[in-house]
Amino acid sequence: MSEKRYLVLAEGKALDPHYGKTARGVILYGPHPVSALVDSENTGADVEGIPVVASVEDGLAVEPRANTALVGVALAGGRLPPEWRVLLRAVLEAGLDLESGMHELLSEDPELADLARRHGAEIRDLRKPPSNLSVSSGANLLQDATVVLTVGSDCAIGKKSVAIELDREARGRGLRSVFVPTGQTGIAIAGWGIAVDAVVADFLAGAAERLVVEGARLGDLLFVEGQGSIVHPQFSGVALGLYHGSAPHFLVLCHMAGATEIDGCPGHPIPPLAELVGLHEALALPARPARVAAIALNTQRLGDKEARRAIDEAEEDTGLPADDPVRFGPGRLLDAVLQRLPSGIRTA
Amino acid sequence: MSEKRYLVLAEGKALDPHYGKTARGVILYGPHPVSALVDSENTGADVEGIPVVASVEDGLAVEPRANTALVGVALAGGRLPPEWRVLLRAVLEAGLDLESGMHELLSEDPELADLARRHGAEIRDLRKPPSNLSVSSGANLLQDATVVLTVGSDCAIGKKSVAIELDREARGRGLRSVFVPTGQTGIAIAGWGIAVDAVVADFLAGAAERLVVEGARLGDLLFVEGQGSIVHPQFSGVALGLYHGSAPHFLVLCHMAGATEIDGCPGHPIPPLAELVGLHEALALPARPARVAAIALNTQRLGDKEARRAIDEAEEDTGLPADDPVRFGPGRLLDAVLQRLPSGIRTA
Repeated sequence: MSEKRYLVLAEGKALDPHYGKTARGVILYGPHPVSALVDSENTGADVEGIPVVASVEDGLAVEPRANTALVGVALAGGRLPPEWRVLLRAVLEAGLDLESGMHELLSEDPELADLARRHGAEIRDLRKPPSNLSVSSGANLLQDATVVLTVGSDCAIGKKSVAIELDREARGRGLRSVFVPTGQTGIAIAGWGIAVDAVVADFLAGAAERLVVEGARLGDLLFVEGQGSIVHPQFSGVALGLYHGSAPHFLVLCHMAGATEIDGCPGHPIPPLAELVGLHEALALPARPARVAAIALNTQRLGDKEARRAIDEAEEDTGLPADDPVRFGPGRLLDAVLQRLPSGIRTA
Repeated sequence: MSEKRYLVLAEGKALDPHYGKTARGVILYGPHPVSALVDSENTGADVEGIPVVASVEDGLAVEPRANTALVGVALAGGRLPPEWRVLLRAVLEAGLDLESGMHELLSEDPELADLARRHGAEIRDLRKPPSNLSVSSGANLLQDATVVLTVGSDCAIGKKSVAIELDREARGRGLRSVFVPTGQTGIAIAGWGIAVDAVVADFLAGAAERLVVEGARLGDLLFVEGQGSIVHPQFSGVALGLYHGSAPHFLVLCHMAGATEIDGCPGHPIPPLAELVGLHEALALPARPARVAAIALNTQRLGDKEARRAIDEAEEDTGLPADDPVRFGPGRLLDAVLQRLPSGIRTA
């Protein structure tokens, strides 16, 4: 079996930090190489060195040739715009497998399913939840692992990247650490997980519980990818269900430096960081009183000097260690988590 | 078309205040008469005057004869125990329509669907969400109606009943009030609504928003049925998504007098009432700063004198008006809501 190699479909969004986050996440953190991104509006650009091309045809001309197409955009609500159908037809007709994180299940689309069958391609819906989910049972409190959940002040500000960076750093130090994916990009990167935003709402905590139970079989220190935000008007339910269901010991609070309003939701301010810390801790279940161990600041919009200043301010405002783990390395934030542990984490 | 008349299937649970809540809610508040309840473990008892019988056959002997069976139990996770299949076969073979609030869609069960077809019966899944849901849009903040959401310290303590009682009282006073159903029992009672716990988690707030938009077409004062609790380890996600998506102006906080632990979740304490008030208000979106207007205390486990004392204590603890609207009437709680309104609500 040949190695998986992606052609990432990112029409109109290859350079968009929000809607292009699946593309960027897979390129930066995924185990599988990416040949090209398809985005006719940004042809000639590149994303982390991967070329952006105009069409599926152009993408397939890039060697080594991709064998799997990935829908690399995250649309609010997860619906597929009609113009995307043209792209999906093209990749299936070229015989590529297709992976998608849309809420709409492409494998159940009659036209696409038929095309896949005729061209020997497979359609994998990364967001399709397991069929046997149920409510949580309390098993989340019985695992012999330390659970760290990345939470945030908004969507698409780096909760997944922070969890991945912390996990990499911990494994680099010889710890039995595991990244626990809870969304379509995390699943594409890690090859397992459940997209908790796609499960039946009653089973949110049950899905999160299952993920930490599975994670605890793989290691002693779990970095769970956060979703949404408890202060997000659209996605707070997912955020709180994941929070209570994953039963974290510690939280790492992620924030886009300088942001004062929920992105895409005018009129919805983001509370100050210290208030967010307090709100998250007040919402912890008494049976698992999670504490915020550190602040992960996304400083991508700032110069080096401004970034350092923003980090200092976050530390002053909250009294917690802060850093930008993607820009300056995750060491300091991992230290902040590890020094909270009452006893040592076993090493590999 | 003959009037709908229910045979309520409540095997083992007819007298259970938690799991029998659909049965009881439909009997107390529904517009359709109930002929009998089927529960072989409680035969000979009655629920609000409706007889409990041993079998579907016995239930169909009660005149006037029922024409619709209702699955009247709410199981955690909503899965149908295998022994229930016998009951469902029996009602479909007798030609009764079947209404169910299970997460498992009975209309998609091949055996049951086939039986229904052969006997001219219809299966209606009350919890089946609309197929075109999406994320919330902000329309919840633009409605010309006052929204009151019942929230609570636990599940199955009366959030639906409180909303219904307040709505009835308001309509009795000539107000254009509407009960907004968010769960299977509320839907069975009111004939419309969305079971928000059954929608895709990402669409929780979107479903709640749609309900208040629809409610605002029907009246000026909306009493939205709450679900779960923000401090419930299993269902907090649903509670918060419904809270933010319905964008209430006011909350009525429901609590079972004397309860100190989440029912069915040992080790999960319920915070004190005053703390719950603060937590709910702290979680309000800044764009719609909901305030708790009153406490609805469920005193069903107490004698009259103890009930009055518990209500007094709740008022002292929170500084808010408190009452048991089911036991002592909803007038006082409705007054507490109405006096918060800055301007008058239009009357019919």
